[in-house]
Amino acid sequence: MSELRKDPISNRWVIVSKERAQRPDYYSSKGDGSGDELCPFCPGNEKMTPPEILAYREDGTSANKPGWTLRVIPNKYPALRDGADFVPLGSGLFHGLSGIGSHEVIIEHPYHMTELEHLPENHITDCFRAFKKRLVDLKSDPQLQHITIFKNHGKSAGTTQEHTHCQLVALPVIPKEVSEQISRCRHYYSTNNICIYCDIISQERSQNLRIVAQNESFIALCPYASRFSFEITILPLNHSARYENCSDQELSSFAELFKETLTRLRKVLDNPPYNFVLHTAPVQKDDETDSIFHWHLSIFPKLTTLAGFEKGTGVYINPTLPEEAAETLRNAHIE
Amino acid sequence: MSELRKDPISNRWVIVSKERAQRPDYYSSKGDGSGDELCPFCPGNEKMTPPEILAYREDGTSANKPGWTLRVIPNKYPALRDGADFVPLGSGLFHGLSGIGSHEVIIEHPYHMTELEHLPENHITDCFRAFKKRLVDLKSDPQLQHITIFKNHGKSAGTTQEHTHCQLVALPVIPKEVSEQISRCRHYYSTNNICIYCDIISQERSQNLRIVAQNESFIALCPYASRFSFEITILPLNHSARYENCSDQELSSFAELFKETLTRLRKVLDNPPYNFVLHTAPVQKDDETDSIFHWHLSIFPKLTTLAGFEKGTGVYINPTLPEEAAETLRNAHIE
Repeated sequence: MSELRKDPISNRWVIVSKERAQRPDYYSSKGDGSGDELCPFCPGNEKMTPPEILAYREDGTSANKPGWTLRVIPNKYPALRDGADFVPLGSGLFHGLSGIGSHEVIIEHPYHMTELEHLPENHITDCFRAFKKRLVDLKSDPQLQHITIFKNHGKSAGTTQEHTHCQLVALPVIPKEVSEQISRCRHYYSTNNICIYCDIISQERSQNLRIVAQNESFIALCPYASRFSFEITILPLNHSARYENCSDQELSSFAELFKETLTRLRKVLDNPPYNFVLHTAPVQKDDETDSIFHWHLSIFPKLTTLAGFEKGTGVYINPTLPEEAAETLRNAHIE
Repeated sequence: MSELRKDPISNRWVIVSKERAQRPDYYSSKGDGSGDELCPFCPGNEKMTPPEILAYREDGTSANKPGWTLRVIPNKYPALRDGADFVPLGSGLFHGLSGIGSHEVIIEHPYHMTELEHLPENHITDCFRAFKKRLVDLKSDPQLQHITIFKNHGKSAGTTQEHTHCQLVALPVIPKEVSEQISRCRHYYSTNNICIYCDIISQERSQNLRIVAQNESFIALCPYASRFSFEITILPLNHSARYENCSDQELSSFAELFKETLTRLRKVLDNPPYNFVLHTAPVQKDDETDSIFHWHLSIFPKLTTLAGFEKGTGVYINPTLPEEAAETLRNAHIE
């Protein structure tokens, strides 16, 4: 059973999960993976994973058998477990909780070596529809406070399975970074009567220095204070705190801009390792949070290594000007 | 010229430094370094680096020539530059500063393939004496607010030069993480009338679950909410906010426990990549900070890869129980 532990000085939550040490290649410096083992995410190997939570399938096919186009399963090596009791842990200065929550894997499609952005837009939309479905379902669990969906692409960005997939982690606490950002959004709103993200979008559109691409509903830009080289944020143009409130039309428009943005990134950086993270408002329904927060997707290419300075101070060194990254991405010739 | 940029939502500072992109192997996914080039940190190659700032040398040898046992030089690819003017940058919602500060390299010894902890204790003490000297010198610059000394050991922990060395970065701002920690230390002190680190040391000594090693003046322990597998913190037993106030006797005692701790880590994890970071109080003299903060050295072995979840939420997943890490390190047979 894993534990959530809170550092008494930084107030940062850590998940201590011995289950995660059972994963293939968890010690990242060892080996490169031989690649000759069966892939648990390929059709025909469904028995290698826990039973599916959600699948989009051809008519007439059975659960946990081939015939699916997208499949959501519990993580076999979960950082957190659902169905457990909420137990306070620690003593004296140290505070913790039993590691309750959810940890799921979203297998985006059946094709082992195909990248998400190479699929047709309607399949990417299906994938984003699955994100929404899982968020909506998990929000009904009163123990869960925050849900993150993310992707690790490439071994140096943290993936241990080659077959492209995303992950979902639902926590019984709100991460410190998130609650601090919400506080600052609240402060900005109370002073300016507008969501800070809406104001940033407005400034970016008038300056036109860091925009990568846009369509009728979304914008992709390189943030002014990007932590990583070629970091990109995609945001809805219209204010919305919750990804899970997107209409089908919006998910389709999001898929279009996502596909274009990832295609530009791949063209410029030659298939770089990367992470993406979907930031939607914390679970609890709260009209104020709905006004002040703005959902977005962050894309972090993994070109440099986080070293002692970043880990020790939280200050990142980014060797690429965001304005130059945006220009290069904008000017890339894509189909 | 680099820039310091502040993210308007997280308040996190980022250094945008195009100079850093000129480094060998800056794009970490490319190549492994051929190893057949001249090492700029080896004796005889002093001309490959900027002129030295400090050196410990044999009598009768000249600056920037062989004969040194330790050498401090400006970083050839500095994230920040000294001697520049303090210029506010950015517009509207975005705030920045010209990238002033210092970025130095501490070449710990002349031997290309020797690790710091393999040297005699008196050489490690010399290295720690050089840290103190650089901190004391740089504190006289009124533009500098925070100084970090750190080490990246191994390519996956961020080093681009094999010859073992440390780095120093002096900033004209206090990193957000540091100022937040100082605030929490202040709050703890005001409620409990004792430094929180002193209280943690006292609890750790009474519980005796996470102690790795100790001597008459220092303690090494695996923190309760360790972010990383086998993370270790070394702290002075007696309260002191500033590393640079250490006596020669204390530096020697620190070197002894550092050597033992790194030797245990190497034995258990077979020469792992790691980072260490020296945390001393921010530059400005302030009697209150001196009461509430406690200097320490954090050691972060690099066994796992930071992935989308950590980068997006600031919540880390640690696959090793700190109590088990401490026990394994404590029980390792070393000479």
